[in-house]
Amino acid sequence: MIKYVYLFNEGNKDMRDLLGGKGANLAEMTNLNINVPKGFTVTTEVCKYYNEKKKVTVEMKRQIENAIKKLEKQVSKEFGNKENPLLLSVRSGAKISMPGMMDSILNIGMNDEIASELEKKVNPRFVYDSYRRLIQMFSDVVMGFDRNQFEEVITRFKTKKGVKFDVELDATDLKNITNEYKRIYKRLSGREFPNDVYEQLFKTIYAVFDSWNNDRAISYRRMNNIDDALGTAVNVQQMVYGNYNEKSGTGVAFSRNPSTGENEIFGEFLLNAQGEDVVAGVRTPEKISELKKFSLSIYEEFKNIAKKLESHYKDMQDMEFTIEDNKLYILQTRNGKRTGTAAINIAVDLVNEGLISKEEAILRIEKEDVESALHKRFDIKEDDENLLTTGINASPGASCGKIYFNSKDAVDAKNKGEEVILVRKETSPEDIAGMKEADGLLTATGGMTSHAAVVMRGMGKCCVCGASDIEIDEENKTISFNDVMLMEGDYISLDGSNGNVYLGKLNTLDPEINEKFEEFLSYAKEIKDLDVYVNSDTEKDLCLALKFGAEGVGLVRTEHMFFEKNRIKSFRKMILAETKEEKDKWIKVLEKYQEEDFISMFNLLDNKTITIRYLDPPLHEFLPKDDETIFDLSTSLNINMDELKTRINNLKEFNPMMGNRGVRLLITRPEIIKMQTRAIINAYKEVNKNIELDLMIPLISDINELKYVKNIIKEEIDKIDSEINYKIGTMIETPRSALTSHKLAKEADFYSFGSNDLTQFTFGFSRDDANFLNTYYKDNIFTSSPFNSLDIDGVGMLMLYAKTASKKVNKDIKIGICGEQAADESAIDFCNNIGLNYISVSSYRVPLAILLSAKAKLNE
Amino acid sequence: MIKYVYLFNEGNKDMRDLLGGKGANLAEMTNLNINVPKGFTVTTEVCKYYNEKKKVTVEMKRQIENAIKKLEKQVSKEFGNKENPLLLSVRSGAKISMPGMMDSILNIGMNDEIASELEKKVNPRFVYDSYRRLIQMFSDVVMGFDRNQFEEVITRFKTKKGVKFDVELDATDLKNITNEYKRIYKRLSGREFPNDVYEQLFKTIYAVFDSWNNDRAISYRRMNNIDDALGTAVNVQQMVYGNYNEKSGTGVAFSRNPSTGENEIFGEFLLNAQGEDVVAGVRTPEKISELKKFSLSIYEEFKNIAKKLESHYKDMQDMEFTIEDNKLYILQTRNGKRTGTAAINIAVDLVNEGLISKEEAILRIEKEDVESALHKRFDIKEDDENLLTTGINASPGASCGKIYFNSKDAVDAKNKGEEVILVRKETSPEDIAGMKEADGLLTATGGMTSHAAVVMRGMGKCCVCGASDIEIDEENKTISFNDVMLMEGDYISLDGSNGNVYLGKLNTLDPEINEKFEEFLSYAKEIKDLDVYVNSDTEKDLCLALKFGAEGVGLVRTEHMFFEKNRIKSFRKMILAETKEEKDKWIKVLEKYQEEDFISMFNLLDNKTITIRYLDPPLHEFLPKDDETIFDLSTSLNINMDELKTRINNLKEFNPMMGNRGVRLLITRPEIIKMQTRAIINAYKEVNKNIELDLMIPLISDINELKYVKNIIKEEIDKIDSEINYKIGTMIETPRSALTSHKLAKEADFYSFGSNDLTQFTFGFSRDDANFLNTYYKDNIFTSSPFNSLDIDGVGMLMLYAKTASKKVNKDIKIGICGEQAADESAIDFCNNIGLNYISVSSYRVPLAILLSAKAKLNE
Repeated sequence: MIKYVYLFNEGNKDMRDLLGGKGANLAEMTNLNINVPKGFTVTTEVCKYYNEKKKVTVEMKRQIENAIKKLEKQVSKEFGNKENPLLLSVRSGAKISMPGMMDSILNIGMNDEIASELEKKVNPRFVYDSYRRLIQMFSDVVMGFDRNQFEEVITRFKTKKGVKFDVELDATDLKNITNEYKRIYKRLSGREFPNDVYEQLFKTIYAVFDSWNNDRAISYRRMNNIDDALGTAVNVQQMVYGNYNEKSGTGVAFSRNPSTGENEIFGEFLLNAQGEDVVAGVRTPEKISELKKFSLSIYEEFKNIAKKLESHYKDMQDMEFTIEDNKLYILQTRNGKRTGTAAINIAVDLVNEGLISKEEAILRIEKEDVESALHKRFDIKEDDENLLTTGINASPGASCGKIYFNSKDAVDAKNKGEEVILVRKETSPEDIAGMKEADGLLTATGGMTSHAAVVMRGMGKCCVCGASDIEIDEENKTISFNDVMLMEGDYISLDGSNGNVYLGKLNTLDPEINEKFEEFLSYAKEIKDLDVYVNSDTEKDLCLALKFGAEGVGLVRTEHMFFEKNRIKSFRKMILAETKEEKDKWIKVLEKYQEEDFISMFNLLDNKTITIRYLDPPLHEFLPKDDETIFDLSTSLNINMDELKTRINNLKEFNPMMGNRGVRLLITRPEIIKMQTRAIINAYKEVNKNIELDLMIPLISDINELKYVKNIIKEEIDKIDSEINYKIGTMIETPRSALTSHKLAKEADFYSFGSNDLTQFTFGFSRDDANFLNTYYKDNIFTSSPFNSLDIDGVGMLMLYAKTASKKVNKDIKIGICGEQAADESAIDFCNNIGLNYISVSSYRVPLAILLSAKAKLNE
Repeated sequence: MIKYVYLFNEGNKDMRDLLGGKGANLAEMTNLNINVPKGFTVTTEVCKYYNEKKKVTVEMKRQIENAIKKLEKQVSKEFGNKENPLLLSVRSGAKISMPGMMDSILNIGMNDEIASELEKKVNPRFVYDSYRRLIQMFSDVVMGFDRNQFEEVITRFKTKKGVKFDVELDATDLKNITNEYKRIYKRLSGREFPNDVYEQLFKTIYAVFDSWNNDRAISYRRMNNIDDALGTAVNVQQMVYGNYNEKSGTGVAFSRNPSTGENEIFGEFLLNAQGEDVVAGVRTPEKISELKKFSLSIYEEFKNIAKKLESHYKDMQDMEFTIEDNKLYILQTRNGKRTGTAAINIAVDLVNEGLISKEEAILRIEKEDVESALHKRFDIKEDDENLLTTGINASPGASCGKIYFNSKDAVDAKNKGEEVILVRKETSPEDIAGMKEADGLLTATGGMTSHAAVVMRGMGKCCVCGASDIEIDEENKTISFNDVMLMEGDYISLDGSNGNVYLGKLNTLDPEINEKFEEFLSYAKEIKDLDVYVNSDTEKDLCLALKFGAEGVGLVRTEHMFFEKNRIKSFRKMILAETKEEKDKWIKVLEKYQEEDFISMFNLLDNKTITIRYLDPPLHEFLPKDDETIFDLSTSLNINMDELKTRINNLKEFNPMMGNRGVRLLITRPEIIKMQTRAIINAYKEVNKNIELDLMIPLISDINELKYVKNIIKEEIDKIDSEINYKIGTMIETPRSALTSHKLAKEADFYSFGSNDLTQFTFGFSRDDANFLNTYYKDNIFTSSPFNSLDIDGVGMLMLYAKTASKKVNKDIKIGICGEQAADESAIDFCNNIGLNYISVSSYRVPLAILLSAKAKLNE
């Protein structure tokens, strides 16, 4: 007999597949003797069966009924018994948490008879508050009625009575509301609200199963790559009531700060309320530290449970709790979502606390954590006059954008290429699409654990919540900050680290990495095999990269040094010179510039490698295209415009990507490689530091090219100083260089795969002419661009061959990669697995590459 | 003790390295009891030693002197003995024949004393003719004196006497000439002509060694890739005299016709003359068949010897003979040079005569033989009024060109890109450079075996010799054909097959292949593994290819069908159409054209495969570039010019070679592939023959492209007739398609390597932008273009991988190659060795490809 239902004491945390995350953790906590409301879990198997057949088997139903019987014994109450009624909550719980995506119903087991009996024994306000919630949720979740019809009733009662909050309504109000709800239910369904508690229970369970396939849940799964076939478990649990009386309450708390990672309990609670009141952000709750004032012992008890769970799960916990009549229940625990910064800080703290190893710390941190931890910051002073307001710093980051007031407008604006800040009173799961597209989110209500905060933190995006002094007019699409009123499309800037909201678009600064981040990177460096170099062409950028942990420079694109306005003029004159004297003159000017650049970069390095690539692009890339610039140039060259245009035209190529560039250019214009060599060597002598000079020749396709150019370089260096140490290597950018790398390896000290060009030539299409890829995506021929993620099947195969064949010939050869895809997760995995020596990425991606290299090593 | 000298009876034909070709064959003939003048060979080792040290060792000299002693005994004569003098010839003879490049001297051993004693015993005219020849040759070869000074003496004597030919001079004349020669010799050298016969001998031997390094010999070796280190042997041989008396003569003959291959003795002789008189073409000799009239028995004897040698060497022989006083001596035999046509005809005959196997026949025929056998023919009638004269059809072919009168002018004109016919009275080795560059050669004197004829046949070039009624004025650079006088730069046309010379530039016709050629190709077809297909896009071309033996069609470039003037207009309109209706309209027009084309090609085929490639190039290749055509198009499209230019510009790409072409175009413009599919299938149904339809998709880089397009094709075909048999395959043109061919092989029925694009992408440069290769050639970085000969190291490696990986997955997959390099010798070798199924080449190269495929198989 298959077991379809598990009492909490029959399960454990490893049974997530069957019991879902929530069910498994409730079972685990039960086993840890933590005070969890008693209950049982209906397995995901039942969900799968139901979702296929739209019914459950007799046996499944029997097991659920049996579990109710056992539960009745455990709690000494009886389901549907008016004297001693057992009331139940029914909650979804999938293997992977999908917060807010599926449905729950509380207070199942209430009916007219039980209510009228119960109001004699306990607070009648509580009885009817529970009853009306049951009807409201059941109507919404099971029957699919518009919930506004029910909300309107409460609003009407509050208005009539002149009060603001639900808690200000008394027992009579709630009883009247309950009755009105029943009338609405009958009107909409044509039937009375069911008094049969088992009917309530089963319909609810089926509705939860159905909710697995609601639009929100499906789109959430798409977004997070969750398998549609998993299904959800259903947890049926004895109700405990945060709204039972004044000695009751409910809250959500993290064992550490999910925004910063600080090691202190962090969360919120509401007295005399049920859980959804906190999550929905309807009332702004109190900080968890305020719980001390309510009851120091309960606060301490909760803190101890939090620590116990954290030690047990070896991770920061996100817990829901309820206090019913001064008794603490834990409703749920799970590993808490957190910002990237918090994730890193917590991981480092857990290592230092001895709870996890460095390896575990590395494995826990995802690519997105590092990306989000490297948030940009605003370049502002404390007393900025553009400050509009300060809300809750719910998710860090600095984002600027035009304001939009609903999800659809935000999506439309983003599609037009705008920067977008979504502004909402509060968010609900319906807002997901807009939140996904927006650069930042501002809400008027809700705290750190509100839907808005949780979701935005999950996506690593900036969020300011509960900015309570703003007024949002959704209809007219305006927002007022005291005396400032903004309209749709106006720019604001959000600082998610401190909750500040600014008028207009602020400048941003480079991110910084703190001590814990550095410590974290040091774990990764201990573990990884791949060296992480940086692609950098300027002093400023190199400086940043070194702070970010770069272990060398893998690519200096020397042509970038010529694009600056004055320099490009000299460069153009050099290209177009017709006499040797003229050419030599401009070569000298350029040599001076280049030498200065190298000096400034070399000065930053010590005990590090710098890999300098000789000029790569075709010459005409440097030439002016518009008549005005051509005219200016013709004047300064003192030749007529037609003549100049002819010279420029002579340099044009049919397929510049496959033309006279890279080593071909260096061979046809040897004065360039000589000039660059002199600049490098003279700068090196000037700086006189311990630097490994790796001179790199681009676009080799044949060993003879390498030999020829190597000889030119050697001769030029020997003229200056034959004692200088340097290495000569090549880019592997053409398929042929990979295919003949066993020959190249005899002449080269190192290789660097230029994955960008290598991808172009391997596929036979250029990135600049790949518009057809849009059709490919549309028709599912390609799912992504090979320029974004390394093509393992084709390009990777060439890399593998080149690496294997080369090391056989030259075991000391150093092999790396410096293309754009080098920071891609699967690319780093691949580079680690085939045993490359280094990867080289742009400065901002250095920390990420360090992490991913370590993870790749651990996942080998 | 090393043996430096071999008597003829001590060697054999396999000792070419040591004895040279001539020496080895003289030895072989001696062993065959053929009447060869007795003698010995000084080995190539002595030459190598001499050329390094400029002397010979005592031992070498001793062995030569010993050999003389033995020779004296064999012939019962004594070297330097006036009573019974032994006279010798000294001839060069390298391993590989270098006709006319090195020097010989005859009549060594003659001096004043011997001459005056000898004239008492034999014809004094002969004695002094021999003596004066010795002095003349010795002066030229050993002393390096200008030979004109000696020629002038003879001319003076002939003029004085009023005769035309040397033979008309009598004994007194020749004695006087001899005395005059001795005076000239003394004047030029300051010494008497040496009476010491050993001094004559050794100085001659050294001079022959020296002649290995004369300019002519060096340039001949360069041209024919002969190793400079080989050196020449020297053959010292008893003189026999074709000029001994009226019963003497000398000749050169082939055992078969070297121009046509006909099986009959072919050659020429001169009575009362020495060998160089024939070769130099000074007197026009008589046909060998005339020898019967001189002496039937000697003619028969020679014929028998010729057959005997041919059977022994199993190849057509080129022989020199001398008749001395009615006795026949064979001076030399070697495998005869022949035209391509003769080579093929002889090979087929030898197979039919049972002398060689079909495999040997294949191995004997070189690429150049087939190329030259496919000479063009003139499109003329017999009685063409432009016929200027008819000479000897010395080397076949049809060539037109401007006339030039010396080697230098011919070379200069060729360098300017002109077609050149070199016109000479007779040629000498000094003319080699001009002969090499000229398209054809016309001479006034000399026959089939003259220098002019031999060299031009060797180079497979058209030659008309001995056009005796022309008058050449070298100084004024004019030539007179009876009443027509032409000047330098005028056009003539030479027909080497019949010796006709025409005024002006005649049209040429496609070559034809005769029955023997067909038989030869049938041997090749039996032997080879590779199928030979043709790349063909038109009915006319396909027709030719089938005559040439094409076994299928490997590539129909369907885009070529659209370049015709009317069609391209429709094609342009289709490309630029903005509405669906408009597009459909032009698609229909194009479909009709294409269907007609396919019908005409299918009609030519039966039991053959045709491989049709869908549209490949980027669309903008079809669009007009110049304003005028754009204007015309704008008028006919009824849109304004600016608008049209914009549409054309929208199709421009940065790197069209790497842009929206091939399968990418077919995916973005599916109407094209659908149209082409309909045209093919409807044509196929219309023709209804047994044809294998191979539909080929270009420029695949990913399996999904293939799947997608395959599906479109299948749907389109099913709409017409789902019962039709066809195959779908891909070009392998991108490195990635080769690297992922194990995936493609699951979907493809066949592959064709497009070596042109594959080369471009593998090297990362385009053929259109490869100007830099000129620098590469200059600096010896590349020796040839990878677009001319297949790059085995890079492209070949991809091919090998693709073939191996694909056959593992799909053992029945058919794999071929259809790029430009497919007809290259090394490419065919490679394709054979890796086991491709077919190669596909242009129609003219089909016979060549058939031969090379068979050779590749035999050379495996």
